[in-house]
Amino acid sequence: MTETLRRILLASRPEGAPRAENFRLEEVPLPQPGPGEVLVKAEFMSLDPYMRGRMDAGESYAEPIAVGAPMQGGAVGEVLLSNHAGFAPGDKVLGMFGWASHGCLPGEELQKLDAGLAPLSLALGALGMPGFTGWHGLTAYGRPKAGETLVVAAATGPVGAMVGQLAKAAGLRVVGLAGGADKCALAVETFGFDACLDHRAYASAQALRGALAEACPEGIDIYFENVGGRVLEAVLPLMNRFGRIPVCGMIAWYDGAAESGLSAPALWRRVLVKHLCVTGFIISNHYDRYGTFLKELGPRVASGQIRYLEDVAEGLETAPAAFMAMLKGGNTGKQVVKIA
Amino acid sequence: MTETLRRILLASRPEGAPRAENFRLEEVPLPQPGPGEVLVKAEFMSLDPYMRGRMDAGESYAEPIAVGAPMQGGAVGEVLLSNHAGFAPGDKVLGMFGWASHGCLPGEELQKLDAGLAPLSLALGALGMPGFTGWHGLTAYGRPKAGETLVVAAATGPVGAMVGQLAKAAGLRVVGLAGGADKCALAVETFGFDACLDHRAYASAQALRGALAEACPEGIDIYFENVGGRVLEAVLPLMNRFGRIPVCGMIAWYDGAAESGLSAPALWRRVLVKHLCVTGFIISNHYDRYGTFLKELGPRVASGQIRYLEDVAEGLETAPAAFMAMLKGGNTGKQVVKIA
Repeated sequence: MTETLRRILLASRPEGAPRAENFRLEEVPLPQPGPGEVLVKAEFMSLDPYMRGRMDAGESYAEPIAVGAPMQGGAVGEVLLSNHAGFAPGDKVLGMFGWASHGCLPGEELQKLDAGLAPLSLALGALGMPGFTGWHGLTAYGRPKAGETLVVAAATGPVGAMVGQLAKAAGLRVVGLAGGADKCALAVETFGFDACLDHRAYASAQALRGALAEACPEGIDIYFENVGGRVLEAVLPLMNRFGRIPVCGMIAWYDGAAESGLSAPALWRRVLVKHLCVTGFIISNHYDRYGTFLKELGPRVASGQIRYLEDVAEGLETAPAAFMAMLKGGNTGKQVVKIA
Repeated sequence: MTETLRRILLASRPEGAPRAENFRLEEVPLPQPGPGEVLVKAEFMSLDPYMRGRMDAGESYAEPIAVGAPMQGGAVGEVLLSNHAGFAPGDKVLGMFGWASHGCLPGEELQKLDAGLAPLSLALGALGMPGFTGWHGLTAYGRPKAGETLVVAAATGPVGAMVGQLAKAAGLRVVGLAGGADKCALAVETFGFDACLDHRAYASAQALRGALAEACPEGIDIYFENVGGRVLEAVLPLMNRFGRIPVCGMIAWYDGAAESGLSAPALWRRVLVKHLCVTGFIISNHYDRYGTFLKELGPRVASGQIRYLEDVAEGLETAPAAFMAMLKGGNTGKQVVKIA
């Protein structure tokens, strides 16, 4: 067996929305694990909006990916060879293998998964980084109280679905936003949102605001921010006094500073006048709480009390197209790529 | 004695910076206190930036002042007549008398002052709303830690001076901004700031940022926001990860949404990427902590450990001019008007 490692590189930096030519697939000899290292065959890799930021040269969540270097990201797979006492062939693990068929990392950088708890790919979604993002952001910065109203966009995605379900369980009115009537129906029927608006159905931020105002008759107490752009513009004037805005992303603005009907002074003024608390966060700074999250959410996801949706692209080579589609809202649930 | 009540009305709404014709002085018969009411002769009235917001028709901290109605604001004075058991002639009190020679209010809306604690006018400054704003914003939202760096503008004003001195006492590096070399010298010499930059000496936000970066070699952990505008634009890229921004005002933006080199997407992105916590607040929502503040700060102000500066305009009729000058940074310390 002369297996090779296939991986996708950042071929060039995108200008605006990423295009196919920004990515390149390469094949290299399969690495042999050095001392303390573990070789893993990837089964699923994750596609997440944050990856868009790392394609740019500017400061973002983390260091930019160098042009010519492999695209970074989380993946789950099975150990093939191990030079680390903590891992044996056959173990299922999570690690930052990048967009690749295999990963070869120090054992310290891998997390062993309980294959019996839930399907493996959930470690990339509902029980992984996105679900954890929703749980941490909501509990630490959203501070939900029964009877309040929460709004979250990308309602069927892995962050929005987690936030919405947790808030609903905590006794809040939960209003989602999603792109398309099908996703809106899913948000209500599958995830129990009280209402979900199709942001594509409104020609302007003002029109969207009108619909939101109807769906949130008592205003908005928590806006869980993962999109920015027109949704933020629509939401902001509806925020109640002492409202909270956890900010985990702004996918609408990742392709460069689009024009916005919202000015910085107007945004700042609203924060002041309504006594808003806005907290940006990067979930990688908070993994000290991940054990608590898993303990609390693992059983609820396993039992079906907290639900999830997955979009699975087939084959590593489909990752760029799936990623580009996701940035345009083409996915419904958590976007993963099935590799092996 | 046929004393009259003199007061200043909002004659018209300003377009941009307020002008003399937006105000009108009128004289009316002195009111007689009704049941439970107290008639007070004003000694000092307060001029504060927040008053600018109330001159506009739009939503601000509170209801707009109606055109033709008296300008609102706090004042201190002496009780002349009392129909309330809690007050007797000669008592010194604080109340919202507006821009007026006398106030006639229910006793419940007055606060009796300890005339022996400190000069009466301090109830409008260091020991009043502005000092309380600085203390509450810093302790509740700034969460200072020794060794960190804090930046605050209007450094010699009653909010900035309180924030700077409290932060300095807590072991922070404190860098101020003020308009003019004289104020900067005062910030350092009188209030103990480590450095103070004259924002007028820099032609652009970029130039100001360069100077701030030198004055804050380890970045900025707390930006106590009371000005907005170019200072915010200069400060934002220097904020450290997990920085805090209490927002109590934005005087640079009160005269309408000026152009800003800062876009809403850029502002939002910085909040996310640097994990900033931005909290707007209106101090009137927090008077449950005022007793604690007075107990803690009263002795420190009385002993001279916490210092203050006052600008005193003479005569009610000078209030509009003093107010307009203050909005342009013409004052050095707390601006009050001596009425009687």
